[in-house]
Amino acid sequence: MAKSLKIAVIGGGSSYTPELVEGFIRYYEHLPVRELWLVDIEPGLWKLNIVGELAKRMVARSGLPIEIHLTTDRREAIKDADFVSMQMRVGMLEARGQDEAIPLKYGVIGQETTGPGGMMKALRTIPVLLDICRDMEELAPNAWLLNFTNPAGMVTEAIHKHSTVKSIGLCNAPIGLLKWLAEKYNTPTNRIHAEFVGLNHLHWVSRVLVDGVDRLPELLSGEDSFAAKNVSGSDFDPEFIEGLQALPSYYLKYFYMTDAMLAEQQAAIAQSGNRAEVVKRVEKELFELYSDPDLQEKPKQLEQRGGAYYSEAAVNLMRSLYNSTGDVQTLNVPNNGILAFLPDDACIEVNCVVTSAGPVPLQLTAIPEPSRGLIQAVKTYEALTIKAAVTGDRSLALQAMVHHPLVPSVSVAKALLEEMLEANRAYLPQFFRS
Amino acid sequence: MAKSLKIAVIGGGSSYTPELVEGFIRYYEHLPVRELWLVDIEPGLWKLNIVGELAKRMVARSGLPIEIHLTTDRREAIKDADFVSMQMRVGMLEARGQDEAIPLKYGVIGQETTGPGGMMKALRTIPVLLDICRDMEELAPNAWLLNFTNPAGMVTEAIHKHSTVKSIGLCNAPIGLLKWLAEKYNTPTNRIHAEFVGLNHLHWVSRVLVDGVDRLPELLSGEDSFAAKNVSGSDFDPEFIEGLQALPSYYLKYFYMTDAMLAEQQAAIAQSGNRAEVVKRVEKELFELYSDPDLQEKPKQLEQRGGAYYSEAAVNLMRSLYNSTGDVQTLNVPNNGILAFLPDDACIEVNCVVTSAGPVPLQLTAIPEPSRGLIQAVKTYEALTIKAAVTGDRSLALQAMVHHPLVPSVSVAKALLEEMLEANRAYLPQFFRS
Amino acid sequence: MAKSLKIAVIGGGSSYTPELVEGFIRYYEHLPVRELWLVDIEPGLWKLNIVGELAKRMVARSGLPIEIHLTTDRREAIKDADFVSMQMRVGMLEARGQDEAIPLKYGVIGQETTGPGGMMKALRTIPVLLDICRDMEELAPNAWLLNFTNPAGMVTEAIHKHSTVKSIGLCNAPIGLLKWLAEKYNTPTNRIHAEFVGLNHLHWVSRVLVDGVDRLPELLSGEDSFAAKNVSGSDFDPEFIEGLQALPSYYLKYFYMTDAMLAEQQAAIAQSGNRAEVVKRVEKELFELYSDPDLQEKPKQLEQRGGAYYSEAAVNLMRSLYNSTGDVQTLNVPNNGILAFLPDDACIEVNCVVTSAGPVPLQLTAIPEPSRGLIQAVKTYEALTIKAAVTGDRSLALQAMVHHPLVPSVSVAKALLEEMLEANRAYLPQFFRS
Amino acid sequence: MAKSLKIAVIGGGSSYTPELVEGFIRYYEHLPVRELWLVDIEPGLWKLNIVGELAKRMVARSGLPIEIHLTTDRREAIKDADFVSMQMRVGMLEARGQDEAIPLKYGVIGQETTGPGGMMKALRTIPVLLDICRDMEELAPNAWLLNFTNPAGMVTEAIHKHSTVKSIGLCNAPIGLLKWLAEKYNTPTNRIHAEFVGLNHLHWVSRVLVDGVDRLPELLSGEDSFAAKNVSGSDFDPEFIEGLQALPSYYLKYFYMTDAMLAEQQAAIAQSGNRAEVVKRVEKELFELYSDPDLQEKPKQLEQRGGAYYSEAAVNLMRSLYNSTGDVQTLNVPNNGILAFLPDDACIEVNCVVTSAGPVPLQLTAIPEPSRGLIQAVKTYEALTIKAAVTGDRSLALQAMVHHPLVPSVSVAKALLEEMLEANRAYLPQFFRS
Repeated sequence: MAKSLKIAVIGGGSSYTPELVEGFIRYYEHLPVRELWLVDIEPGLWKLNIVGELAKRMVARSGLPIEIHLTTDRREAIKDADFVSMQMRVGMLEARGQDEAIPLKYGVIGQETTGPGGMMKALRTIPVLLDICRDMEELAPNAWLLNFTNPAGMVTEAIHKHSTVKSIGLCNAPIGLLKWLAEKYNTPTNRIHAEFVGLNHLHWVSRVLVDGVDRLPELLSGEDSFAAKNVSGSDFDPEFIEGLQALPSYYLKYFYMTDAMLAEQQAAIAQSGNRAEVVKRVEKELFELYSDPDLQEKPKQLEQRGGAYYSEAAVNLMRSLYNSTGDVQTLNVPNNGILAFLPDDACIEVNCVVTSAGPVPLQLTAIPEPSRGLIQAVKTYEALTIKAAVTGDRSLALQAMVHHPLVPSVSVAKALLEEMLEANRAYLPQFFRS
Repeated sequence: MAKSLKIAVIGGGSSYTPELVEGFIRYYEHLPVRELWLVDIEPGLWKLNIVGELAKRMVARSGLPIEIHLTTDRREAIKDADFVSMQMRVGMLEARGQDEAIPLKYGVIGQETTGPGGMMKALRTIPVLLDICRDMEELAPNAWLLNFTNPAGMVTEAIHKHSTVKSIGLCNAPIGLLKWLAEKYNTPTNRIHAEFVGLNHLHWVSRVLVDGVDRLPELLSGEDSFAAKNVSGSDFDPEFIEGLQALPSYYLKYFYMTDAMLAEQQAAIAQSGNRAEVVKRVEKELFELYSDPDLQEKPKQLEQRGGAYYSEAAVNLMRSLYNSTGDVQTLNVPNNGILAFLPDDACIEVNCVVTSAGPVPLQLTAIPEPSRGLIQAVKTYEALTIKAAVTGDRSLALQAMVHHPLVPSVSVAKALLEEMLEANRAYLPQFFRS
Repeated sequence: MAKSLKIAVIGGGSSYTPELVEGFIRYYEHLPVRELWLVDIEPGLWKLNIVGELAKRMVARSGLPIEIHLTTDRREAIKDADFVSMQMRVGMLEARGQDEAIPLKYGVIGQETTGPGGMMKALRTIPVLLDICRDMEELAPNAWLLNFTNPAGMVTEAIHKHSTVKSIGLCNAPIGLLKWLAEKYNTPTNRIHAEFVGLNHLHWVSRVLVDGVDRLPELLSGEDSFAAKNVSGSDFDPEFIEGLQALPSYYLKYFYMTDAMLAEQQAAIAQSGNRAEVVKRVEKELFELYSDPDLQEKPKQLEQRGGAYYSEAAVNLMRSLYNSTGDVQTLNVPNNGILAFLPDDACIEVNCVVTSAGPVPLQLTAIPEPSRGLIQAVKTYEALTIKAAVTGDRSLALQAMVHHPLVPSVSVAKALLEEMLEANRAYLPQFFRS
Repeated sequence: MAKSLKIAVIGGGSSYTPELVEGFIRYYEHLPVRELWLVDIEPGLWKLNIVGELAKRMVARSGLPIEIHLTTDRREAIKDADFVSMQMRVGMLEARGQDEAIPLKYGVIGQETTGPGGMMKALRTIPVLLDICRDMEELAPNAWLLNFTNPAGMVTEAIHKHSTVKSIGLCNAPIGLLKWLAEKYNTPTNRIHAEFVGLNHLHWVSRVLVDGVDRLPELLSGEDSFAAKNVSGSDFDPEFIEGLQALPSYYLKYFYMTDAMLAEQQAAIAQSGNRAEVVKRVEKELFELYSDPDLQEKPKQLEQRGGAYYSEAAVNLMRSLYNSTGDVQTLNVPNNGILAFLPDDACIEVNCVVTSAGPVPLQLTAIPEPSRGLIQAVKTYEALTIKAAVTGDRSLALQAMVHHPLVPSVSVAKALLEEMLEANRAYLPQFFRS
């Protein structure tokens, strides 16, 4: 691999970018980034400029020989890159707002990474991403694509099915759990072995070894349990968690506590508008901060944004690929038999040993029996959604929508699909060919 | 195989029995039944006597050398039997009434073969049935067990997992579809090849050849479609059916049209009490008819009872096993790789060639992609329910309940489970050990 | 399907053709052949004419409205055909002679359907056959291709992998065993259910029901055993057969009795030249008979030719496809999970229910454990041979040769490959591109 | 896990033991061995005493608080052990001599880890080992069993199938290849990622990353190739290796170069008696050295014994299990889907991440297609041999022998089996019950 690296960040104008820059600075010794290309589209140019200038100030302060390039020409950025990081948002926060709000009108969970909302985000995103992959196949065929764009599982699966680009999907949830365990048990994360089973935003942790000691039983039961500690508006039911014999991902609340989560969402939207609106406000404040010409480091407020550890996940993975470290990371990769009940080309989220030739998944030693149904159901919806995204076939889109576990019936699915496709018309040319 | 056959019918006092007797008379030439033992429990003795006397009159009229035995001693009936037919109902219609009514209070579909209701029926039935299997292992180890007892898929799977008895599960739905097609296309059923994919009460028909001609496209679309013709209170949506590329079982309405079916059930119970009540009334009338000493044949009214073709399915299967005919029938058998995404020991409902050594499933040529999620989810619930039935473990029962697609959340599942276990206390000793 | 059928026979000048014609005449009622096109290449034209005239006399005598067409234009013959039967021999008997003789020089079994000889026949045949498939894709896309050309398993697999033609491989060995059993037990073949497990010319029969009675134990043991009765120069060892718990195909002698079979082959070639020479002499005599203008039926002598039941197998299959009979036949079809340890696209020889949409394989109920190794090893050689045939890659051909169980070492494989490729130079353009 | 460890070595009188002791001394910091119990049987007591005294002198010199215990009471040694290392030899070198010599009389490779010789060793060893496992189940149910006893794959599989002991099979071949690569590329072994595919003594290396660079192409081709460098009496053919696209294990010479290896073995036995005799002489010399009361360290001459890295492999594995390091080691473990074409309970040799809960296999990314046949064939022989070892069923033993790829025919197998069982009569009570 090249001795000095070129990295392209698609969606470089994101408010997360300072985290990434901070990571590159901190780990420069193991990941010698020479060129960092931040790419964005015209409507995001003002954000790109603000973030880009902050990045330049951060690098200047570090004294490292990293060049920051800002551009709207993604082909120039991709050319000969070693890594491409994908963190864009087709339709921006406005579209997210609709993903979250429209389903609520039908009594259905509104969420941008699963259900009807996740489906819309996938339909908007996949064609754009595959276009970028075409550029990569031509201009940087050996580059690794690190995909953070949600729904990360579906998007990564779409790339594996429809492109030759070497792509890995990433999420901050697994690293978040490791950090939580590391703090709880006062040990470094590399002394923790947690087995993740499932899909992106739909995983169960079925084994937890901390310093070689099995900590799952105590995490499942009693006062100190995961259910009790994983504080949010609504907690998992402790009895249920103990029977499950695994720690469910936070996102599983949408499936296991559908009624309570729906009530929460409806109350929230009634009170303060949808979450997209909240995020917009936070972003606005962040960009005001970023604009301060005296700011030379990532501001503390960024951490409230919700995407903690994204940067750490990305830099860790690049470092391990570059140095062929052989450490274990939780990644979104093609199944190839790891979950025997899913197709080989399904994208799953599991532990992998990271080598320079890519991630190699580990066998699963404990698949929670109850998880099988939800994994298969959501994967079915994902595979159908990918086909719909690529073909623009409404009939497939309806099948995908109907078969998502959060959608209660064909009649609701039809109405919801109609309204949501229309609302996304500007971003779904494949569904509105004359 | 024996040249003159002994057949035991567990639950012989059922109102369906005259159909079975009619079948034995009609097909005597291919299935030489010498002894027919009708068994029932004490509380059902009065029904057994009425039905048994009718059976004797039917046989007398036929002039065939079939002996009818009525007994409450099931071991005597089972001893050296060639076939045992299982059609009992633990808890009788009262329990069914609760299976159907309690879930409705929580806004959940009430159904005795799936969801919370199906789970309760399985919990009541499986231990009793495994007891009978113990007797068969001892007294008739070579006999075939034909199981009609619902939920037939779960019950048959439980027998395969926990007994060495040779058991096959049967349902009248597949033969019902063949009859419907035979009438529509004016051809005998043996000229129809329909591929059934899925589980008992959860199948899709993905291929229909009538006299060698592919009729699926026309059954999926247009005025003459399955959706349009399959008249009931609520029909399947034609657009959805066309996208599905398969004919869904009637029972899939509970999953695809949950809202409408729930409304129907709630309206029905409000108006005329639950379906169990209706059935009780029909039964009462039937037994009055059966009591008529001049009646020597199956009365027409029996057909309204809803279990059409049960007898035909049973006699067909016995005939094919006895004669090793090699014809194709749709049966509930262990999976062993036919649906690659299910465990080998999962019970599935598929086409089989029937030989004297048992049914041999056919490979599936067209598995509807959308069906995978529901099949896996319901099978997960089924496997967990079987474990709960055998162990009496409430925690497993909760996992089973939570993971059924018709149950909306852990909190509903907990309340429902509590109330339903309590309501079934008399029939669930495994859950109420002191 | 068409009401009057057009059938094309590639390699129509074969001495087997009168059997086929006899079959069409006998089963005309169920298979209304209107046009029978016999195709051959220029060097075989004299044989085509002799056989074709005999066919015309046979039809004339029958009084049926079947037209016989003789041609060297295969595209004309294929156009709009309903069935294409493939029974050609690239390189004719001369090439077969080399397939059988050259390996013997190296102490290796010489056989035209497996080992080095089978490999050469596959390398010669597959490209020609794929060319014909190109014509079929264009001119008769709905036709069924019935392939008798050996090595039938490899050839059929090659077609499935590299063409969209609907193709089925056939062999007379399975029907031969059924006929042997039918005679032994004095019952029609449709009363026999024998489970075939494996590949073409490499199968085991692991279950035999005759009139519903399990006859495997007696066929495996004692005086009346398969080993004792299956008389040839060398018999299977009875003790071994009993331990195997299955009846091995005749061809398994090459693997289980390699030393004895090799000695037999070497003695035979020393005494009377290779089998290809013997066959040539028989053929010569047959064609003299066929030329007799008074001959109006298949002569008795044809049966000595060794290919008994080929015609019956072909006509049976066409009849069942045409009438969608749903009967069970043993055919070469893609695996798709039936043998879980082989790839989905591997061609296997197993029981299938025949419908108008094609053969549907039956699940295997008893795979002899010892068979797994040989099946996998030979299938590996087959898959590599197909790749070599299509690409002309010598390195792949060497891998295929080395990994065949009858080839003792890399060094023997290299020498053998070199000599055999050279000997087949005229028929292997893909390996001798300038 | 215990803070100070108890280790039992079954076969502790082996000449290898000083290596193991050296390892425990060197890595004491990471593996705090408090008690080391060396166990042997009466006939080996003189060796146990010599080796044991040397071990005591080695420990004394190190100044570490390790207690050495010598005993013939294996139950005392096993009680509460943390690790049990198994390196015994049932029948000792005399039996090995026969394993190697008898097959040669029939023109068959004589080898103590595969073929007829490996089979005899397995038949002698498995029952004894399972007896020891019974003791472990009772006296040290949480201990890890590290098995070096050959044939290590079969023996480990037998333990997994017939005992609840946590067992891992080990071989020095994988670590030997890593050491060879490390020296060649001048890098530490933990910078090398080599993918091992297959079984113990039957593996292929299909991927080699050294410091993140793919070195497989150069190892396969040219002057510097593995074939050219892997010097022994007979080298692999370079052209063949390049086509294979993987580095074959040394043991694959028995399969790929059967003729040359057989000639070598026959020449060797003619010249200097069998290898067992040679080893006996080397051992005699070693024990003379060990007896020197001034010797306080492992003598250099031990390395010539052929078992280099055994100790390193064992201590590495104990260290990683004890510390839950998460590093990658090549181990013999149950398959569970890693090689999809083998049964789940087959033992395979692949890369694993080592945690305190045991080894977790990595997915295979490149299975050499040609390897499938040999792997399946040898695994079939292994599975049958294990059944024969446990049951003493001669018919199963014959099936196992016949189906090994190095055995040319049923008739040779029968004669060989007869003679070898008789020669091993003293060690095979299960085959000679009156």
